[in-house]
Amino acid sequence: PKTFKIAVLPGDGIGPEVVEQALNILNVIADASPDLSLDISTHLFGGCAIDAVGKPLPEETLAACKSAHAVLMGKCTPIPALSDSYSHLGSVGGPKWGVGLVRPEQGLLALRKELGLYANIRPASFASDSLLSHSPLKESVAKGVDFIVVRELIGGLYFGERKELTSSTGGTGFAQEDAAYDTMIYSVGEVERITRVAAQISLACDPPLPIHSIDKANVLASSRLWRKIVTATIEREYPMLVPLLDHQLVDSAAMVMVSNPRKLNGVILTENMFGDILSDESSVIPGSLGLLPSASLAGAPSKTTTCSGLYEPIHGSAPDIAGQGIANPIGTILSAAMLLRYSLGLEKEAAAIESAVRKVLDSEETGGHGFRTKDLGGNVGTKEIGAKIAEVL
Amino acid sequence: PKTFKIAVLPGDGIGPEVVEQALNILNVIADASPDLSLDISTHLFGGCAIDAVGKPLPEETLAACKSAHAVLMGKCTPIPALSDSYSHLGSVGGPKWGVGLVRPEQGLLALRKELGLYANIRPASFASDSLLSHSPLKESVAKGVDFIVVRELIGGLYFGERKELTSSTGGTGFAQEDAAYDTMIYSVGEVERITRVAAQISLACDPPLPIHSIDKANVLASSRLWRKIVTATIEREYPMLVPLLDHQLVDSAAMVMVSNPRKLNGVILTENMFGDILSDESSVIPGSLGLLPSASLAGAPSKTTTCSGLYEPIHGSAPDIAGQGIANPIGTILSAAMLLRYSLGLEKEAAAIESAVRKVLDSEETGGHGFRTKDLGGNVGTKEIGAKIAEVL
Ligand SMILES: CC(C)[C@H](C(=O)O)[C@@H](O)C(=O)O
Ligand SMILES: CC(C)[C@H](C(=O)O)[C@@H](O)C(=O)O
Repeated sequence: PKTFKIAVLPGDGIGPEVVEQALNILNVIADASPDLSLDISTHLFGGCAIDAVGKPLPEETLAACKSAHAVLMGKCTPIPALSDSYSHLGSVGGPKWGVGLVRPEQGLLALRKELGLYANIRPASFASDSLLSHSPLKESVAKGVDFIVVRELIGGLYFGERKELTSSTGGTGFAQEDAAYDTMIYSVGEVERITRVAAQISLACDPPLPIHSIDKANVLASSRLWRKIVTATIEREYPMLVPLLDHQLVDSAAMVMVSNPRKLNGVILTENMFGDILSDESSVIPGSLGLLPSASLAGAPSKTTTCSGLYEPIHGSAPDIAGQGIANPIGTILSAAMLLRYSLGLEKEAAAIESAVRKVLDSEETGGHGFRTKDLGGNVGTKEIGAKIAEVL
Repeated sequence: PKTFKIAVLPGDGIGPEVVEQALNILNVIADASPDLSLDISTHLFGGCAIDAVGKPLPEETLAACKSAHAVLMGKCTPIPALSDSYSHLGSVGGPKWGVGLVRPEQGLLALRKELGLYANIRPASFASDSLLSHSPLKESVAKGVDFIVVRELIGGLYFGERKELTSSTGGTGFAQEDAAYDTMIYSVGEVERITRVAAQISLACDPPLPIHSIDKANVLASSRLWRKIVTATIEREYPMLVPLLDHQLVDSAAMVMVSNPRKLNGVILTENMFGDILSDESSVIPGSLGLLPSASLAGAPSKTTTCSGLYEPIHGSAPDIAGQGIANPIGTILSAAMLLRYSLGLEKEAAAIESAVRKVLDSEETGGHGFRTKDLGGNVGTKEIGAKIAEVL
């Protein structure tokens, strides 16, 4: 049987609980496929790694991730979070590690860079129309929303040259002209490769999805490069997608995403910082952060090619509800489905998990309100949801 | 009588129509105040200036704006726009001037910089609860939303050093490593002065408003400077506001603005690029772009000090409905009210306009649905709305 190496980083807070359920599901899949075998190893990452060895991304963890076909992650940062209190606090870092010199975020950024994970994929849609009532948008506005955000993840402001604020007076005070900066820089090659990811994701659907490229080309030089290279790459390599490509300004996109979100249905292709903002904005529209998965890829996957990647739910580590067995494991389970699709090339198995999740959410068992965790108004626990999905599978 | 010089830039599209109504209202105020006289002059700006003299910001216009107490502007850029089609297209520039080498946007950026308009103020709230049905958010989510975005307007990525994409191969093709960049740079002095504007706006209310400072301090050096200097400025100069200050990450804020917007009620203080995105996102929540005003100020106004400023509605020039007499003039009329408040120190007169607008929107005359333009589901024209507000005043 073909063996795939999977590095698992359960992380902090609710991470270990939700990862456990996703691993169960992966094992169900592996048990049912005689020619598939998973070699799963677990490693320290994030706050728990800071506690154990003084840094968020230990060498051993990085090495294991580098040699794996895919990485499955629980959660190391507490933002955004599953629970209401947490997702709305929005402060930097968690109650424990957030303010220190060594922060879990640094481990996350280093891991993305070291593994070359340049493409972050965040779908946001309604797993079921029965969830429309959970959206903050009017049902008529939200109905049918179906985004896939493709965010460049290791370029731009996040990794450009930067200068911290330092006191030029030598004392503790700062002079008026003391400054700090970050650089939003993109090269032609960086934009070409992320455009290919967006194109492949579009083409994986039948008919192919529209691609909305987001920039601020009326002001920024890096956005003018972005717009030019996205256009040229699609024209040169994906001529059939030319009629499906449009360009939107980031401010306008942030607006339309709320006022008329279906206009952005399809693939939303964007650079790192804009993607950070828009993917979070998009993720609250379907009404439950707990359901949404993500993938961070080191290549452009197609029906015939796979690439290595890191998979994690989009919610945070939610320390306030950790250990209570009430966290929603579905975001992590759907992340595992993405792992099967993009890194292992197992489309059928991925689709089976997605369909099982939908069935469980819509099951009639609890009076037609579905089998749901607390964040969706239900009272079913983390393990029970996981077990139910495994059963349906 | 005290004479104030007001430079008026009607601009393009629906600009002249909506500005006419705002000027009528200013004249009503001046006629009723024996010790107030307005010296109003009109100048070319934007697309019409490109047509007439080849550039969006002619010297004569700039000189007139510099010597005026305040500038009232219609609209020069078509984004975002009042009409549905336009506000959702979101392409750069208008159908006519948008793609040329000389773009209206350049005039706008140059005007902001030349006049030192470092503080952009954009309130977003419901002029009346009867407008809740126009919000894309569920009424229970939107009810009571009351933001004032204070955006730094002449720093950061918009004005930092930049490099355009140029071909290093000498031909038309680009090399993979050819790059372009923009610089997000902030100095201590720039952050201090915008913090003071936020503080004064907070203190103008009784009780003072919460201040939510937005940044990405878990990643960006310029955001760490921002957070440090905002905090230090409030602690040093406005100790009574310390308990009202919090810090939010921009991705989290973009999310909360949709999922639980009242959590951001008060002053939202942010740098230029984040402010561009968040102010547009915030502006669709009250459901009509046509009602919202803005001010761009060259100082921190308080109850006892005024500053020069530029005032304009937040909607675009909406070329597709220009000349039809159906544009909503209220955003411009409320901008004129802000002009009276911040640049002329006429708080009572400003409040009178705001109250007249509310009365007209809620008037029973058209069957309790208010006296409204097409964008709000009514069929009252631009001039009639203006006349009605003047009458109520
Ligand atoms: C924690 C933070 C560094 C990270 C980011 O900004 O990329 C997070 O917001 C995300 O989107 O994964
Ligand atoms: C037209 C554009 C340059 C401008 C900006 O980005 O500042 C506009 O979006 C705004 O917010 O006033």
